[in-house]
Amino acid sequence: MGEIANLYKPVEVFFGEGAIKVAGQVGRRYGFKALIVTGRKSTKENGALDKLTKSLDEHGIQYLIFDEIEPNPTDKVVNKAAEIAVKEKVDFIVGIGGGSALDAAKAISIVSSNEGTAWDYVRYPEGSRLTPFLNRPVITIPTTAGTGSEVNRYSVLSNPTTKEKMVIAHSLNYPKVAIIDPELTYSMPPRLTALTGFDALMHALESLTNKRENFIAEEYAIRAAELIAKWLPVAYEEPENKKARRYMSYAAMLAGIAIDHLGVALIHAMEHPVSGHYPKIAHAEGLSALAPYVTKFNYKGNPEKYALFAKILGEEEKPHKAVDALLKFIDRFDLPKTLKELGVEKEKLDRLTEDVYLCARHTFAVNPVEVGMDEVRELYEKAYEGEL
Amino acid sequence: MGEIANLYKPVEVFFGEGAIKVAGQVGRRYGFKALIVTGRKSTKENGALDKLTKSLDEHGIQYLIFDEIEPNPTDKVVNKAAEIAVKEKVDFIVGIGGGSALDAAKAISIVSSNEGTAWDYVRYPEGSRLTPFLNRPVITIPTTAGTGSEVNRYSVLSNPTTKEKMVIAHSLNYPKVAIIDPELTYSMPPRLTALTGFDALMHALESLTNKRENFIAEEYAIRAAELIAKWLPVAYEEPENKKARRYMSYAAMLAGIAIDHLGVALIHAMEHPVSGHYPKIAHAEGLSALAPYVTKFNYKGNPEKYALFAKILGEEEKPHKAVDALLKFIDRFDLPKTLKELGVEKEKLDRLTEDVYLCARHTFAVNPVEVGMDEVRELYEKAYEGEL
Repeated sequence: MGEIANLYKPVEVFFGEGAIKVAGQVGRRYGFKALIVTGRKSTKENGALDKLTKSLDEHGIQYLIFDEIEPNPTDKVVNKAAEIAVKEKVDFIVGIGGGSALDAAKAISIVSSNEGTAWDYVRYPEGSRLTPFLNRPVITIPTTAGTGSEVNRYSVLSNPTTKEKMVIAHSLNYPKVAIIDPELTYSMPPRLTALTGFDALMHALESLTNKRENFIAEEYAIRAAELIAKWLPVAYEEPENKKARRYMSYAAMLAGIAIDHLGVALIHAMEHPVSGHYPKIAHAEGLSALAPYVTKFNYKGNPEKYALFAKILGEEEKPHKAVDALLKFIDRFDLPKTLKELGVEKEKLDRLTEDVYLCARHTFAVNPVEVGMDEVRELYEKAYEGEL
Repeated sequence: MGEIANLYKPVEVFFGEGAIKVAGQVGRRYGFKALIVTGRKSTKENGALDKLTKSLDEHGIQYLIFDEIEPNPTDKVVNKAAEIAVKEKVDFIVGIGGGSALDAAKAISIVSSNEGTAWDYVRYPEGSRLTPFLNRPVITIPTTAGTGSEVNRYSVLSNPTTKEKMVIAHSLNYPKVAIIDPELTYSMPPRLTALTGFDALMHALESLTNKRENFIAEEYAIRAAELIAKWLPVAYEEPENKKARRYMSYAAMLAGIAIDHLGVALIHAMEHPVSGHYPKIAHAEGLSALAPYVTKFNYKGNPEKYALFAKILGEEEKPHKAVDALLKFIDRFDLPKTLKELGVEKEKLDRLTEDVYLCARHTFAVNPVEVGMDEVRELYEKAYEGEL
């Protein structure tokens, strides 16, 4: 309490089972030719892409499908798609899929509407150089419930040359419209449900506990954590449970707004180098392998909020119980517990530590407790070995 | 469940103790000369107006103060202020005070930027005739916690000639920025705290239970009701309790967004003629004198939601318990229980009934149960006599 919270949500949301049907109608606001940005397989197999193209067809919107987005999307793939967007003169961009497709779609908009390439825009400061009125509008359609990318200004990109994983966080990177259709998440297998749900939980945890303050965004984080605690187990057991899927989609959205205002902290800062160097590791897997160790290190910095987090997950309302709560949660959904089991090599820990410094040390300033390179190195070691 | 919820919040919110300090900085976005719209007394006595003008002074913003807004503001006063806004070429408008000042400020923007007078814009349909790009921007600064006007597109206006009380609900009527500073509510006496809190609770109740559906807005209504149930008693007993005031301001905002998406129902439809004909009756007093009777009539139309409402207020989770919950709530805060005690004349009940039909019958379509003139007349009679 004490800060002045700013809440501005420029993203219009359509939410509900079947909401994807509005895609064509919404798209017509922005023109007649779309670039659809998606992954290689899942949106084709689960029918989401068909639903989208059907709606675009019904509204006379032409489209190109760019289906080369892989987990941990690269600046290169963004640049490639942006060239296509320019060459084909598409009017707007639709990202459909998990966080990778959505992050990429937003970045493609920036790159296709401005000078330079994707890597020029990571950590790009707010200011007047970009040309907001020309930005290609973006519609986001998540098919998982976790990333929150559908409603915020973040695109996490990997640079395969340098192994850096960094973030575009510019206000021009907001989508115009998010179409959140919980039905599109029904086909997620339990493991993906758990991983993406854990991602959303980590957004709630880190936005809630870091040093930034924003009463309203914290309320959203708390609500998100409560809903995940209650509904993720149900969505995990019953993939077509309407209520569970609905609340998980909603919780992911809330947590996505929370990080938009409050940012994250050391768990995310330490995860990005992991999946940056090991692109086969999913972001949420890295988060899970790091969260208990980092939380044990962090909880004293914000005892009230960690105690609240523990309580929300069903533990005693005590700060150190946040660690137990996470361990039980990770056990419950059989998520990764160490970096070792994810295939991280011990000899890489020094390099990962350097990359935290190079790419994400701005998060040190907002981490609940003071942290430097030594602490990061030590925490990587513990997360590698599984030493709590 | 089942509908596609649209959530679009074009209003940027600044929230927190001391938030009024940002007024000057925000105002500079919109120009150098402001019309401040407020009531005759309270914002002068409680220091809110001084805080505002200090912030505007610090940023070199000139201002005129229009302080003639009274409870149940009229179209006439809006027209008068709009003329001043035009004549004095103000760049933007700041509404500071309770719901009346905020409602008036928004309407003054519309009238001062378009043809015609205030009454031309009640129930004005969406479309292209108004000139959105010229509309004078509005900043809202609530000093009560109830109305929700700070974040939505409603202005309730009274026509003293016809006694009609009607609503401008056009998308051009959104403020640009809401500055929600809970400290400004500390000086509310307990009765005003209770009345405005009850107004917010009625927004939550009617938006939640009416026939419209919007999952996200309903979530907001539920959260608002939970927070009011928990914190209104504290704010009532301890006017300077920071947490209670903060949560009440937040709850009022949530409920204000909920009605923006979902509208209200029969309690509001029947209240407007009451305070339309008796401008000395506060809106929330009328709501309180009507709510139990209308709820008893309505609860069967949406048993699940009324049961939830009852539970939130601490009763058994049964639909009919919503009536008991309201009665206890009204007792607890010593709010009005009948129209008779408010000074409504029995011989006016026919006229009030006619006015519901003339001014607010569009709410019949969304009311939880079917309703016509006979039922309205009967409910007025019951609310007059106190017959449940």
